[in-house]
Amino acid sequence: MTNISHSDLAAFIARCLGACGMPAADADRVGGMMARADLMGQEGHGVFRLPMYIQRIRAGGMNMSPEFKVVSDRTATALIDGDNGMGHLVMHHATELAMEKARNAGVAWVGARHSNHAGPASLYAMMPAQEDMIGIYMAVASANHMPPWGGTEMLLGTNPIAIALPSDKFPPIVLDMATTVAAYGKVKTAALKGEQMPEGWMVDRNGAPLTDPTKSADGFLLPIGGPKGYGLSLIFGILAGVLNGAAFGRDVVDFNADAVSTTNTGHMILALDIKAFTDPDTFRADIDAVWTQMKSSETLSGVDEVRLPGERMHSVTQTRLKDGIPLPEALREKLGLMADDLGVAPL
Amino acid sequence: MTNISHSDLAAFIARCLGACGMPAADADRVGGMMARADLMGQEGHGVFRLPMYIQRIRAGGMNMSPEFKVVSDRTATALIDGDNGMGHLVMHHATELAMEKARNAGVAWVGARHSNHAGPASLYAMMPAQEDMIGIYMAVASANHMPPWGGTEMLLGTNPIAIALPSDKFPPIVLDMATTVAAYGKVKTAALKGEQMPEGWMVDRNGAPLTDPTKSADGFLLPIGGPKGYGLSLIFGILAGVLNGAAFGRDVVDFNADAVSTTNTGHMILALDIKAFTDPDTFRADIDAVWTQMKSSETLSGVDEVRLPGERMHSVTQTRLKDGIPLPEALREKLGLMADDLGVAPL
Repeated sequence: MTNISHSDLAAFIARCLGACGMPAADADRVGGMMARADLMGQEGHGVFRLPMYIQRIRAGGMNMSPEFKVVSDRTATALIDGDNGMGHLVMHHATELAMEKARNAGVAWVGARHSNHAGPASLYAMMPAQEDMIGIYMAVASANHMPPWGGTEMLLGTNPIAIALPSDKFPPIVLDMATTVAAYGKVKTAALKGEQMPEGWMVDRNGAPLTDPTKSADGFLLPIGGPKGYGLSLIFGILAGVLNGAAFGRDVVDFNADAVSTTNTGHMILALDIKAFTDPDTFRADIDAVWTQMKSSETLSGVDEVRLPGERMHSVTQTRLKDGIPLPEALREKLGLMADDLGVAPL
Repeated sequence: MTNISHSDLAAFIARCLGACGMPAADADRVGGMMARADLMGQEGHGVFRLPMYIQRIRAGGMNMSPEFKVVSDRTATALIDGDNGMGHLVMHHATELAMEKARNAGVAWVGARHSNHAGPASLYAMMPAQEDMIGIYMAVASANHMPPWGGTEMLLGTNPIAIALPSDKFPPIVLDMATTVAAYGKVKTAALKGEQMPEGWMVDRNGAPLTDPTKSADGFLLPIGGPKGYGLSLIFGILAGVLNGAAFGRDVVDFNADAVSTTNTGHMILALDIKAFTDPDTFRADIDAVWTQMKSSETLSGVDEVRLPGERMHSVTQTRLKDGIPLPEALREKLGLMADDLGVAPL
């Protein structure tokens, strides 16, 4: 492991993307956002993804000069066509628009189509939370790993939701979750480490527990709460995908397997202005009181303390701001080869 | 079992509420909505609740002549104070306001405080879906049955969400779910039937599986997906409760145990105008295509077909519109005694 600062990592990502033809301002923005995913401890959505993004860019599968079009516009809504641009840019733009509209109308819902994988859901939900708003983000996942409940055809993804709420002295409350028990990245990690998966993550095509992650292609992920998580995945996919004219179901392109076809990824972001309901300072104090109350619960034996959603992410962020972001040697080597190939300075 | 028509059941509920001092128009509205819960197969939220509501009304725990106040108003948001009125009336009013605002702005979010138990979540989510809109409803449950994840103090409820999406030839997609694996009503039903609960519904205070429903007071409900369902319950409770100045956590009044104290129940409803994103006919056809695609999946052995959220509710509704609503004799007797007591004609 070597530790890298957020700014060094962001600059590295930016120069790789710049070498692929991304305009400098866009490359800087994406570099900062991807490095922020690593900073928050969401390594599965940070620089780890860069080689795959660059493979897609070089294969012509993403547009480096997208022109975002507002397809449909109302006082508190918009639908954006991302012109096959990088998902981070599309959703940064969509989130800023949602915040601007929410400042005026109280709430706003902005959908996007013709976007791409945009990194961790919490990046976008947290933008409104930094400006006295509540953020809610949903996306159609970039590959299908789950059948409808009772079925065996993988028509649904881990379709995630993130919700972020601002606080005062305590960290913001940030829930960022897949609608499956485990995200697919956890399965890949278990396979890499040679570990077995617990029962409940996956089943095989006969519905029997599948615990060997090297056999993950023979089974599928399970939704949280059985039919409930299936319903959430289905509906988040409709709200982020179908409603926006984005890919859903059999139309979803597996971006791991296919670097060329346009993914037409869909997302949505909602921004809610807290001032439309209460004084933001009161709300922040109320969220602190929620922290205090949950923390005050006695715990089950073996549990040191109750945690709140976003707590671990916040403490990882603080540690990494101070000590840097640990990069596994294997990943660093892979990124080094990629930098050579692109003719840019390595990390 | 005796079968009762929706209109007869609605009229019975209305005359009981009228005898308690509820104005006739309000009593008719609540009667229709409560009987609709039974019609949809949500018996736990229908006439079964009437004795409890009436006990609260007679104890002075609910206001029969509430004046709804708009505490805060923006183009696409509002916060309503329900003046301790019946939850059905508060949320019917809030949902109509949200739909009116969404028609203008594209989306609207209306919160409510000083409300009461409002019956099944899907009642409100389905109102926008009948007018080319998408409905999303959340509520703070009217009693706490779940600790924060890892804790033992019951600070959270089954805080539900309902989302409804209009369709064309197929039924609307309607998800209506508690954030716990089982709603508390299912535990009560198992106890009444003398059945054991499956593992996974509840644990005792040591975290061990609790399967005897007569011992439910010794344990608590489990959230779907462990910490994920805890996060959803916490955040739905904040969005429907804390944001609106409604009760949350230790301030929640257990409406089963206390018929007098003001509950200050909180809810929220979001209405999204489909026309702000796409042609509603296109969207309805797209939802039909989602139905067809999910249904076309091969199934696990032993599963006859894939189902969609809201499918069972729709078929129960169709059957009961034709054959009437089956009422268990014990409930009918209880309602008969109540009618005598109120001096109104029985069912």
